[in-house]
Amino acid sequence: MKRSEFLKRFGIKLDMAVEAHDLIRGETGREIPGVKMDKQTFSQGEITVINIMEPLGAQIMGKPIGTYITIDAPVIRENNKLAHKEVTAKLAEQLGSILNLKPEDSALLVGLGNWNATPDALGPRVIHYSLATRHLRKYGPQEIFGVLRPVSALAPGVLGITGIETAEIIKGVVDRVQPNLVIAIDALAAQSVERIGTSIQIANTGINPGSGVGNIRAGITQEFLGVPVIAIGVPTVVNAATIAQSVLDQFMQQINQNPVLAKTVANLNPISVDQAIKNVLQPYQENLMVTPKEIDDLINNIGKIIAAGIGHALHPSVAPEDLEMLVH
Amino acid sequence: MKRSEFLKRFGIKLDMAVEAHDLIRGETGREIPGVKMDKQTFSQGEITVINIMEPLGAQIMGKPIGTYITIDAPVIRENNKLAHKEVTAKLAEQLGSILNLKPEDSALLVGLGNWNATPDALGPRVIHYSLATRHLRKYGPQEIFGVLRPVSALAPGVLGITGIETAEIIKGVVDRVQPNLVIAIDALAAQSVERIGTSIQIANTGINPGSGVGNIRAGITQEFLGVPVIAIGVPTVVNAATIAQSVLDQFMQQINQNPVLAKTVANLNPISVDQAIKNVLQPYQENLMVTPKEIDDLINNIGKIIAAGIGHALHPSVAPEDLEMLVH
Amino acid sequence: MKRSEFLKRFGIKLDMAVEAHDLIRGETGREIPGVKMDKQTFSQGEITVINIMEPLGAQIMGKPIGTYITIDAPVIRENNKLAHKEVTAKLAEQLGSILNLKPEDSALLVGLGNWNATPDALGPRVIHYSLATRHLRKYGPQEIFGVLRPVSALAPGVLGITGIETAEIIKGVVDRVQPNLVIAIDALAAQSVERIGTSIQIANTGINPGSGVGNIRAGITQEFLGVPVIAIGVPTVVNAATIAQSVLDQFMQQINQNPVLAKTVANLNPISVDQAIKNVLQPYQENLMVTPKEIDDLINNIGKIIAAGIGHALHPSVAPEDLEMLVH
Amino acid sequence: MKRSEFLKRFGIKLDMAVEAHDLIRGETGREIPGVKMDKQTFSQGEITVINIMEPLGAQIMGKPIGTYITIDAPVIRENNKLAHKEVTAKLAEQLGSILNLKPEDSALLVGLGNWNATPDALGPRVIHYSLATRHLRKYGPQEIFGVLRPVSALAPGVLGITGIETAEIIKGVVDRVQPNLVIAIDALAAQSVERIGTSIQIANTGINPGSGVGNIRAGITQEFLGVPVIAIGVPTVVNAATIAQSVLDQFMQQINQNPVLAKTVANLNPISVDQAIKNVLQPYQENLMVTPKEIDDLINNIGKIIAAGIGHALHPSVAPEDLEMLVH
Repeated sequence: MKRSEFLKRFGIKLDMAVEAHDLIRGETGREIPGVKMDKQTFSQGEITVINIMEPLGAQIMGKPIGTYITIDAPVIRENNKLAHKEVTAKLAEQLGSILNLKPEDSALLVGLGNWNATPDALGPRVIHYSLATRHLRKYGPQEIFGVLRPVSALAPGVLGITGIETAEIIKGVVDRVQPNLVIAIDALAAQSVERIGTSIQIANTGINPGSGVGNIRAGITQEFLGVPVIAIGVPTVVNAATIAQSVLDQFMQQINQNPVLAKTVANLNPISVDQAIKNVLQPYQENLMVTPKEIDDLINNIGKIIAAGIGHALHPSVAPEDLEMLVH
Repeated sequence: MKRSEFLKRFGIKLDMAVEAHDLIRGETGREIPGVKMDKQTFSQGEITVINIMEPLGAQIMGKPIGTYITIDAPVIRENNKLAHKEVTAKLAEQLGSILNLKPEDSALLVGLGNWNATPDALGPRVIHYSLATRHLRKYGPQEIFGVLRPVSALAPGVLGITGIETAEIIKGVVDRVQPNLVIAIDALAAQSVERIGTSIQIANTGINPGSGVGNIRAGITQEFLGVPVIAIGVPTVVNAATIAQSVLDQFMQQINQNPVLAKTVANLNPISVDQAIKNVLQPYQENLMVTPKEIDDLINNIGKIIAAGIGHALHPSVAPEDLEMLVH
Repeated sequence: MKRSEFLKRFGIKLDMAVEAHDLIRGETGREIPGVKMDKQTFSQGEITVINIMEPLGAQIMGKPIGTYITIDAPVIRENNKLAHKEVTAKLAEQLGSILNLKPEDSALLVGLGNWNATPDALGPRVIHYSLATRHLRKYGPQEIFGVLRPVSALAPGVLGITGIETAEIIKGVVDRVQPNLVIAIDALAAQSVERIGTSIQIANTGINPGSGVGNIRAGITQEFLGVPVIAIGVPTVVNAATIAQSVLDQFMQQINQNPVLAKTVANLNPISVDQAIKNVLQPYQENLMVTPKEIDDLINNIGKIIAAGIGHALHPSVAPEDLEMLVH
Repeated sequence: MKRSEFLKRFGIKLDMAVEAHDLIRGETGREIPGVKMDKQTFSQGEITVINIMEPLGAQIMGKPIGTYITIDAPVIRENNKLAHKEVTAKLAEQLGSILNLKPEDSALLVGLGNWNATPDALGPRVIHYSLATRHLRKYGPQEIFGVLRPVSALAPGVLGITGIETAEIIKGVVDRVQPNLVIAIDALAAQSVERIGTSIQIANTGINPGSGVGNIRAGITQEFLGVPVIAIGVPTVVNAATIAQSVLDQFMQQINQNPVLAKTVANLNPISVDQAIKNVLQPYQENLMVTPKEIDDLINNIGKIIAAGIGHALHPSVAPEDLEMLVH
């Protein structure tokens, strides 16, 4: 009952590169060819950088070639604003390291997800807290806003509300506004509840179909949009099937300590194990999400951190003490 | 690995009488002494009435003596307003059957739960859709509102927001306003995901400590408030630990088909089974909720149905076609 | 102290054709050349159709050549859902009369305005209540949604939030989605408080810069978008300067009944009359709005009516009793 | 056409003592007996303290004996968080000067007004941003919350939603919770648009019937509740009739510079002047409010300032840098 096979059977995609990496390494017992991982710590947590450098690594990981940075900061769960500022600074630094923008270059922020469904509302919440500056350069006072990079911001809604593929709306706006970069923010599904609201993934590969809580259907990628896309994602849910499988897995580890038992159980039909999960989760199946009661507070906290981190990374000449004014 | 023991170990209370009844009957194989159950069907589903008539039954059920009516109507999940009207009418009828009010008697509606946390927001949502009439009798036009029963409505918030036990706030207001009846609406946790957003429990016993999504700490009962309390509850979540246990349970049923295997597995330490679940659910444990993606829509649908059903039951002389005007 | 001159000095545009027409006819005492007006009544109010047929009329009216239909229904202020249904039906009928679509043609609904500012939130509210169907034709069950016209829906936000001219966002989306028609919904400013929340203007001319509560800066018109644009607008505010001027006007009418007095007052410097208004309204000036306390309820009522009216006009083959299912 | 008479005829109450004082002094030309006024400035504005010391002064002012502190800080209109912190500190200082609490004394915050009507939503917004601590002393970690005063918080809703006089709800809760002090926050109506969102009135007299945007009908006072009540109010609207009268007033000042004209106009029937205003404001009359477009942002800014100022005044031993953690 390998986790990777289970995920495949249930059509669950691994949104986080760090989890995909852990899973595959755990199952194969060795580093993935064409993939490099580095870890470092900071005052409030850990940063993991995964570089997928070659097609073979991309194929095994199920993710495009590129850089995936994950900031893990459990302190986001606490209402500790000082610690949150440290996370914000670290996010700004890491984001800044892969932005690759000239001083005059413009950016379009896109908050993906459904504002009516709390766990999917992270993207729109970040847009709410962000400051668009593109129009200020035209209509605002020059002395204040001359130093700011032109930033625009959009929360396009989801297919169920708009009737339009989200990627199509963004493509339309990108073609008109012609930003030099798109930063797309989305809520993710994790494998582990520990990550909910406390892990931030930054990837320079954009967002691929089928990922995110809202399951977009077309890619928000440089290939489609014609400009580089940085994706910022935070897990806000764990799929209920994943939880169920994790518990069965832990249970099996105990059984496996008894060799005779292990052998007999190994013969159980995996299909009927899946059926056990499906029986419990119907009639919702893949739409059942596990989320902590305090998810609204978590999304508020992480939403502010991401908006501030983006603001700081995009306007590095603005002093940290003035940064707050760039955020609502 | 009995479900009832698991629930006890995890401190999970069964909010729904119908589920407690099913569980105990399933485990004991016979009707509970001092408890009577009746089932009937209607156009859109099923109605189960459980009467706990004696202290022994109350003790076994873990619920006070009283009447518990459950309306199961899966159609609430669909956006079918005609079918919703049938559910509304059935709710009004069932609620009316236990209201026990004189024509001039007054009622206070109390919407329990946290408006900031979607799965806990059912109570406040019902208050939002309900029409208070108590002041209209004093300040409004007599010809219109003379026929209406005085109804007041309150969404008191939760302990974490107010710093006050919810029961204390209600007690204070009841002492001042002196209604003849309190109707308290709350979001519940179910054992089965099928019930989320589609089962309505009406009980003439009030609400007891530790129940509901928000876990109130003091009872909202006739004993404490001094007036009869009818509780209307709808499950909006399943505890993640419950889901985990259900999947293990289904899995064990397969194992148990092999007698040798069953015997060996039975010797597994139940504590370590619990540990499997705890490992997966930390750091959130009992605060991890399983809820469908579309929970906001579900709560809107069921919130309107409950507000309309209460309005109709409290003002039976208002014609059905005018009922809509009693709801926002 | 002519109203038209006052409006020009204060930079106030007349959003409603019917008010522009009344004002000019009142000041000139005769019909405007190249303009035709028809009035009819219905159960709940009055319908005024103004046709601007020639460039001269357009110039005098300050509005493009086209048809402007206004439905006045004071009953919208009341919580009378039956009467609201009659208004909805009338709106569907009038809108249908100028839609000019083939059965298979698609439409894009655009809700203009700022969801954070109540009087400007009408557009987004209509989108909230509307049902997008475009994706259902692709992903939904064919037998249900084969009969529905493809409709998409967007609430693009305002310049201050997005940093992008609203017209640019819409143009981008229109270029991608290629609808056959755009229907843009916006909150308007009226000259008279009586119209707030109760007048609906339908125009086949799109929306021109400077109009609406949010004062868009670029036109949402067929000329710019390349497809026909129908604008639906409802006044939600009266400019405070307008109110001030109206009161002075009423006051002057009394003075003018005394010929001697009238003559002396007529010599008052109009600039200093303006100054009186400016003194009172600073520091907000043109951003001061007059709106009734119950504006949120009004916008909810009218938002539902417009969403239902549009749904009915776009999907005429759906039976009225099923119409409700097309609206949230 | 004296302003005071106009207000009486239109049933408009002066919510702000500083405006009542200015008006009466302006009309009588001398200080009011039994009333003392002091002004001082601070970095971001001006503080006016009005003491009504004797019954005669109270009668003339139309306000109970007590202390009324007004902080005027136009900078609140700007998105300048550093300046907002200075206003917060000044509010905490002024509020602290009249709190009169022992270290262990408890307080109940009450946010008056309707959360569904933006200009009336200030009270609930302050409650949203405030931290209740009363339960933390019982359920939270002792080392952190031992130093905090027990604070509870309530947003009771308005008569139209609850059917209960707001004062009755508060009385019920006060009787149960027995706080040593009530702090009631409410949105006010001002005479001048300049004050909207930028003036904070602190009064140790509670709130009297007929005041506030929502027009409460029973007093929230020490007399009724049995504990001292401090009222914090901020104007969020100007009555539309007030605006109309102000403009007429400014207009009359010009007329009055011409003595002949002044004499003739003085003979105009004041009733018909009122009629001019009524004609313009119908059908809404006293429910028509003048409010700036950006009222939502203003209420957010001032709401945070008041929540933080109250938090700081109630928990003076908490260091300013930790204060942020006491506010959401």
